[in-house]
Amino acid sequence: MKKLWEKNGTQHETAEAYCFGDTAVLDSKLIVYDVLGSIAHANMLSAIGLLTEKEFLKLKKALKDILELASQGKFTVEFGDEDVHTKIENYLTETLGDVGKKIHTGRSRNDQVLVDLRLYTKDYAFQIAFITLELIGKFFMFAKKYEFVPMPGYTHMQKAMPSSVGMWAGSFAESLLDDLEILKAAFALNDQNPLGSGAAYGVPLPIQRDVTSKLLGFAKTQNNALYCQASRGKGQLAIMSALTQIMLTISRFAQDVLLFTTSEFQFFTVAADLCTGSSIMPQKKNLDVMEIVRARTHVVVSYEQMAASIISGLPSGYNADFGETKMPFMNAMETVIDTLKIMNLVVDSLSPNVRTLKEATTKELFAAHAAYVLVKQGMPFREAYQKIGMTLHTLPIFDVAEVLASTSHSGGPGNLGLSKASAEMKKKKAWWQKKEARHKACINQLKGGETT
Amino acid sequence: MKKLWEKNGTQHETAEAYCFGDTAVLDSKLIVYDVLGSIAHANMLSAIGLLTEKEFLKLKKALKDILELASQGKFTVEFGDEDVHTKIENYLTETLGDVGKKIHTGRSRNDQVLVDLRLYTKDYAFQIAFITLELIGKFFMFAKKYEFVPMPGYTHMQKAMPSSVGMWAGSFAESLLDDLEILKAAFALNDQNPLGSGAAYGVPLPIQRDVTSKLLGFAKTQNNALYCQASRGKGQLAIMSALTQIMLTISRFAQDVLLFTTSEFQFFTVAADLCTGSSIMPQKKNLDVMEIVRARTHVVVSYEQMAASIISGLPSGYNADFGETKMPFMNAMETVIDTLKIMNLVVDSLSPNVRTLKEATTKELFAAHAAYVLVKQGMPFREAYQKIGMTLHTLPIFDVAEVLASTSHSGGPGNLGLSKASAEMKKKKAWWQKKEARHKACINQLKGGETT
Amino acid sequence: MKKLWEKNGTQHETAEAYCFGDTAVLDSKLIVYDVLGSIAHANMLSAIGLLTEKEFLKLKKALKDILELASQGKFTVEFGDEDVHTKIENYLTETLGDVGKKIHTGRSRNDQVLVDLRLYTKDYAFQIAFITLELIGKFFMFAKKYEFVPMPGYTHMQKAMPSSVGMWAGSFAESLLDDLEILKAAFALNDQNPLGSGAAYGVPLPIQRDVTSKLLGFAKTQNNALYCQASRGKGQLAIMSALTQIMLTISRFAQDVLLFTTSEFQFFTVAADLCTGSSIMPQKKNLDVMEIVRARTHVVVSYEQMAASIISGLPSGYNADFGETKMPFMNAMETVIDTLKIMNLVVDSLSPNVRTLKEATTKELFAAHAAYVLVKQGMPFREAYQKIGMTLHTLPIFDVAEVLASTSHSGGPGNLGLSKASAEMKKKKAWWQKKEARHKACINQLKGGETT
Amino acid sequence: MKKLWEKNGTQHETAEAYCFGDTAVLDSKLIVYDVLGSIAHANMLSAIGLLTEKEFLKLKKALKDILELASQGKFTVEFGDEDVHTKIENYLTETLGDVGKKIHTGRSRNDQVLVDLRLYTKDYAFQIAFITLELIGKFFMFAKKYEFVPMPGYTHMQKAMPSSVGMWAGSFAESLLDDLEILKAAFALNDQNPLGSGAAYGVPLPIQRDVTSKLLGFAKTQNNALYCQASRGKGQLAIMSALTQIMLTISRFAQDVLLFTTSEFQFFTVAADLCTGSSIMPQKKNLDVMEIVRARTHVVVSYEQMAASIISGLPSGYNADFGETKMPFMNAMETVIDTLKIMNLVVDSLSPNVRTLKEATTKELFAAHAAYVLVKQGMPFREAYQKIGMTLHTLPIFDVAEVLASTSHSGGPGNLGLSKASAEMKKKKAWWQKKEARHKACINQLKGGETT
Repeated sequence: MKKLWEKNGTQHETAEAYCFGDTAVLDSKLIVYDVLGSIAHANMLSAIGLLTEKEFLKLKKALKDILELASQGKFTVEFGDEDVHTKIENYLTETLGDVGKKIHTGRSRNDQVLVDLRLYTKDYAFQIAFITLELIGKFFMFAKKYEFVPMPGYTHMQKAMPSSVGMWAGSFAESLLDDLEILKAAFALNDQNPLGSGAAYGVPLPIQRDVTSKLLGFAKTQNNALYCQASRGKGQLAIMSALTQIMLTISRFAQDVLLFTTSEFQFFTVAADLCTGSSIMPQKKNLDVMEIVRARTHVVVSYEQMAASIISGLPSGYNADFGETKMPFMNAMETVIDTLKIMNLVVDSLSPNVRTLKEATTKELFAAHAAYVLVKQGMPFREAYQKIGMTLHTLPIFDVAEVLASTSHSGGPGNLGLSKASAEMKKKKAWWQKKEARHKACINQLKGGETT
Repeated sequence: MKKLWEKNGTQHETAEAYCFGDTAVLDSKLIVYDVLGSIAHANMLSAIGLLTEKEFLKLKKALKDILELASQGKFTVEFGDEDVHTKIENYLTETLGDVGKKIHTGRSRNDQVLVDLRLYTKDYAFQIAFITLELIGKFFMFAKKYEFVPMPGYTHMQKAMPSSVGMWAGSFAESLLDDLEILKAAFALNDQNPLGSGAAYGVPLPIQRDVTSKLLGFAKTQNNALYCQASRGKGQLAIMSALTQIMLTISRFAQDVLLFTTSEFQFFTVAADLCTGSSIMPQKKNLDVMEIVRARTHVVVSYEQMAASIISGLPSGYNADFGETKMPFMNAMETVIDTLKIMNLVVDSLSPNVRTLKEATTKELFAAHAAYVLVKQGMPFREAYQKIGMTLHTLPIFDVAEVLASTSHSGGPGNLGLSKASAEMKKKKAWWQKKEARHKACINQLKGGETT
Repeated sequence: MKKLWEKNGTQHETAEAYCFGDTAVLDSKLIVYDVLGSIAHANMLSAIGLLTEKEFLKLKKALKDILELASQGKFTVEFGDEDVHTKIENYLTETLGDVGKKIHTGRSRNDQVLVDLRLYTKDYAFQIAFITLELIGKFFMFAKKYEFVPMPGYTHMQKAMPSSVGMWAGSFAESLLDDLEILKAAFALNDQNPLGSGAAYGVPLPIQRDVTSKLLGFAKTQNNALYCQASRGKGQLAIMSALTQIMLTISRFAQDVLLFTTSEFQFFTVAADLCTGSSIMPQKKNLDVMEIVRARTHVVVSYEQMAASIISGLPSGYNADFGETKMPFMNAMETVIDTLKIMNLVVDSLSPNVRTLKEATTKELFAAHAAYVLVKQGMPFREAYQKIGMTLHTLPIFDVAEVLASTSHSGGPGNLGLSKASAEMKKKKAWWQKKEARHKACINQLKGGETT
Repeated sequence: MKKLWEKNGTQHETAEAYCFGDTAVLDSKLIVYDVLGSIAHANMLSAIGLLTEKEFLKLKKALKDILELASQGKFTVEFGDEDVHTKIENYLTETLGDVGKKIHTGRSRNDQVLVDLRLYTKDYAFQIAFITLELIGKFFMFAKKYEFVPMPGYTHMQKAMPSSVGMWAGSFAESLLDDLEILKAAFALNDQNPLGSGAAYGVPLPIQRDVTSKLLGFAKTQNNALYCQASRGKGQLAIMSALTQIMLTISRFAQDVLLFTTSEFQFFTVAADLCTGSSIMPQKKNLDVMEIVRARTHVVVSYEQMAASIISGLPSGYNADFGETKMPFMNAMETVIDTLKIMNLVVDSLSPNVRTLKEATTKELFAAHAAYVLVKQGMPFREAYQKIGMTLHTLPIFDVAEVLASTSHSGGPGNLGLSKASAEMKKKKAWWQKKEARHKACINQLKGGETT
């Protein structure tokens, strides 16, 4: 297909393959967002008289047709189409003739892709937020259910102090709640409209950028046009740092579960249908999914670093290097969503072996408690610590239920504050729901109207 | 010096060197925070009766003595001291005898170092915020001063469309303003008190964690004790992702300045005393500082990835791996502060060569404008684009001042919104000032009182 | 399709998608290698009597059919097939019944995938070596053609000393020659046969590992079975470090070309069909391919780090994490091959603007030469340097041709040693050709014989 | 101290701090190499008549004095000295007057630092090779000693098949042997003399580069002067990829030991003096050193990526960014040496708990063996596998000693080939010893002679 910029020559095929080889897969995921951005842009153009109302309605109709075709798998970006922007403009020109040739008035593919990625980001951020919140809910439920089931607490992979299944599960829920705070900040950064910044230097037309901001549901118009371009990659990176945080929390869970389901520990059981077997050893039940989570955490971390490295040290203005950040960004997004889905399944199927856990709560876990008994009798702590350390063979027996209950300061196993933390979760969920509702209302409004 | 945990043997010297070789430099920077955390902890212990008022005052006095000694360079962490916590407890025991042996009641070095790093983070985040805001101010002033000085706008390192020095400088200011939003979110995550989480499983004493939160000026008490430990590294990482963003903005400036001060461009001049020379070529004036900024952006990006990789896949509970995140974190912090200082100097000394910039604003930059002239005459944009593209040799002459002024949509060179953006900066500055004032008030209160 | 290990249950679909979602694309590229490894394995089994000659020939025939089908696109790994190993075993069992069920005797998918990746690596390493050697040849030809065309030499992006186009082009050729040395070492590490190591602990059958080594053309049998598994990822990483080196050399070229084709430098011209245009600015000719090379260098660097991070800290024995190194490894391989192809095109089309280059060779480039004139008259160098540095306005005029010629020590612009370096290239080429010829002979032998 | 290039002004103190803040520590480690390079350079200058014999001898004497002073700690690079090169030239000028001002004739700090780093690299590579070989020796001895002690073999952290302590230990030895192959290739790349390449464009004097190559013991003279500069960072990176490989092998050991010394496994014991304790829990014995090894593997991986990122996309010629690769490179070198030292200690003190290991070799480990029994009776493997898989509760009892012995193919637990692998180790050791002996002979020759 002819490129928008081809005048009297065509691009070398190898160069085209090098530039746009991966575009088909990635840009197909942007079709819906490019259409939305185009409707808003056309709407604004008609508002300022650069398109007639009739032209706008034709464009809107054709753009909505693309959405329909795309949903049926009949409109995709293929190699040779260059990118989603060229594909769509070419479709409009083929379908509408001269009216199609007007769609690009007052914009550049540079601001177009920026707005596509922002809309993509909002959509995926909602998904990630909600599936994370679902997972948090499951962790809290699990924590509540097994709140006082004893479990050895480890440090340095060695038995340290008594803990509980409730404390263990609750720690993941609270970690994810904090991770969402970073997602929220990154979301806000991406909730700015870059449309109208053109190639990076604005356009010499009286466009009204606030109009498209409103139509597309952006919280504000991103100002300086050169900065709009310079934020390419940086906005994605902010999201990716939130994805890294989520994955890091989850990788801790994965490592714990892998350790705690060995035949040496046997603290937990996971459903058989989440395990794989071996091609040679008939007895094997392997928890591949948790190992893959562990590996993909590194993948997401590396994608973040990859995106940062790509944009580091680029001069001002659009550079083709920016395009290469799409791959790590979009792959990281998909990886995290897939991982969260698996996590929800694993937590659903996770079952503690209560008896084993109790038996594993052996007496050396209480050495600090023995020292504190001496402290309560007036011995300075360091002295008590030394004394117990020298007489470990005579450690007294503690009642683990009592010990857990008595560690009752906030955040201790006897006072996990699950209800309070759950309430926090609900508050966060409400925030995301409200944001999403507003966003969807704008998008529906934009797509709606008399042309349907 | 004897380790807190040594009972009847000592650590192998090589192992000690391996574990604590770098600790001296890093932990010396934590002395002040460890002292503050210890005063707060002792204060709380006295409130719940585990220390007498008299014991607390003795401890507070000795701890404040450490601050005084440290400020004179007479109290540092040296190799053999293990870490800042051991050093301080040993000092207290030597100075106060049995009272010193009581300081560690109800805490672990694991929650101690967490609180140290949080206090360190708050201190450094304030510094970074203010010096960034100072830099933003300079960029806005520069943008205002040269608002309408024309400058070629580039994409793909090729001349693209007319821009202005104001637009260029303003883009960095706005970028940094957004970068601060991430710092703000990361700051909030770190503004939680982990003290009282003990080794990761709480302590079997009726400690009151909210008391130390209040004394140390934390916005809230971090809840689940196991999560407190699991947030080690993650909190630092959140900060580091903000540092990466700041460096990425700055690296764009560095690359621009390196390019724009070549003898081929000559758009800007930087003060001679910021340049270095060559040992062999008498004529050289090299802008090393900007090259080093470019390199150190990669350093900060890698430090962030390093910290993430270290904590990825660790099982729950404290692991010694966490300690290794101190180096990349603290180094990244210092690097960013040093870089911001250099940036302030470079921007101060930066001077546009107005005549060269004007001459460089050549006619091919206006090709899009020529197309828009045809659009205004009714030609569809893509047709106009093709027509101009085929007749580039006959491009009309445009008046650059007029063109810049006429690109008057928000964020265009004719409407940079510098005052509005400056107002935004002032609002952000006020936020950080208020936070800092509150924090300092708490810390002064904590250090103050009858013992001085 | 049924998994090899499924007994009385099936894997949860979401878990399957998580484990094998990307496998289809990657494993389809391994079909040919899995077939070759299987033929060799079956051959060995028949040699030790675990298969009859007839059974072996049936298996060989069916495996060769797969090769044929795969070459026609009729045999691919699809989602649901699990992986290439399961797909092939299932095909053999469907086609051959009981004989198919014998193919997996004495092996595991763990050693199977190891051997697949080794064979893949050898194949791709040959490709990369030869296309790199082709590129080196082009650089030497270019250097020879423009050996004494003057060109400013830069340090710190500032004019430093006179250089030549020959020196510039020759520097890339020599860099790539060294890069190939690392590829060679990595190739040797991969030229070991892991087959027979089983799941990581060998197999309790009298298999003869040296037989498959010989059949598959491996230089040696990798010994310790547990180490065979532990080398998963590490062998790929060695290759990736060579890929990084190649990309780093190329990224320097890319950055130079981007700089030297700006309108401010104009030192070189690249063919128009390697450039792209802008959707908004009719005049633009952008060298996207060089920007993308620059970006993909970071991509390859990150893939290397990704693979290293994934395998870091894994316990002994196979872990599913290993599987996740396939993606970065295979993607990096493809990226480098694509990049080398583009490089060959760009160098083919590159043309120096001799006049501009001469004019750019301005007099400040000769300041060091002026100092050396004084040195030759007996002045100590540092004094001469200072004197010239204080009187830069009075620099004498030098004849650039003479200056270049007179810098005649080895490696200087007057003595580039192009013939000697070209001879080195030919020697290396011969080494790779010999290796490839031997490898191909083995593979043809393996595939050949009476069953065709 | 005055910079070599300062003419009529001084560098801004903040800029100096930014450029050279870390130089003191790093460059002090380069003094000895800078002196050696300088002696060789002066020697060559006297050979071509640019120095008199007498001048050369004076310089040599003064340079050797620096070595002596440095060994006493009386000659170091401090902040304000700029770098090691400036420090030494200034010393020579102060001591020798005009003769000192001649030392820099025909060289630049750019080629000087290249040669320093190459000499540093050779020195450290020898150290790393020998201490790695020592470790390999210990692993082989350990493997020999416990060759047939049974041990469960794991895959996916689950019990897989029977293994042995000999197999486990031998796997690390063989892995390190392969890692040394990469170090060897990287060593060869660094064994080229860059001296005489000047600032990157050679020098207009009849210097004889082969003379300094011979004097300094380099295998060859690196040719193209521009490539010499462009290899900055790349040579270090090649070494770092070998360091990464070594650390990855070691991190597997570290993770195994951490797992196998938990109270749940208890397979091995490590000496108490390699463990640390807890400040709160009297019973703890933590194997911090192995956790830190695990973390520092990520540190070394990140340093490698940091160095690669810094040099990626730099234009030709020296750039100050190169200087920033010193830190990650030299830190990685030191980290690996320290880690290898710790490893030698840990392996020395490692002791298997034979009884526990035997008891852990439970019957499910033999499921594949049970299937092979059926295979030997004529059942196709996949059928045997399925049958055993469905009747796991009736697995027969195998004699582990017999099973290990019968897995007698090369690399199996019954045929570990320890002697052959040890012989390979000795061969490699001899190679490194020969290289080192030659290198030392050159250096001694260079330093020796009549001036002593």
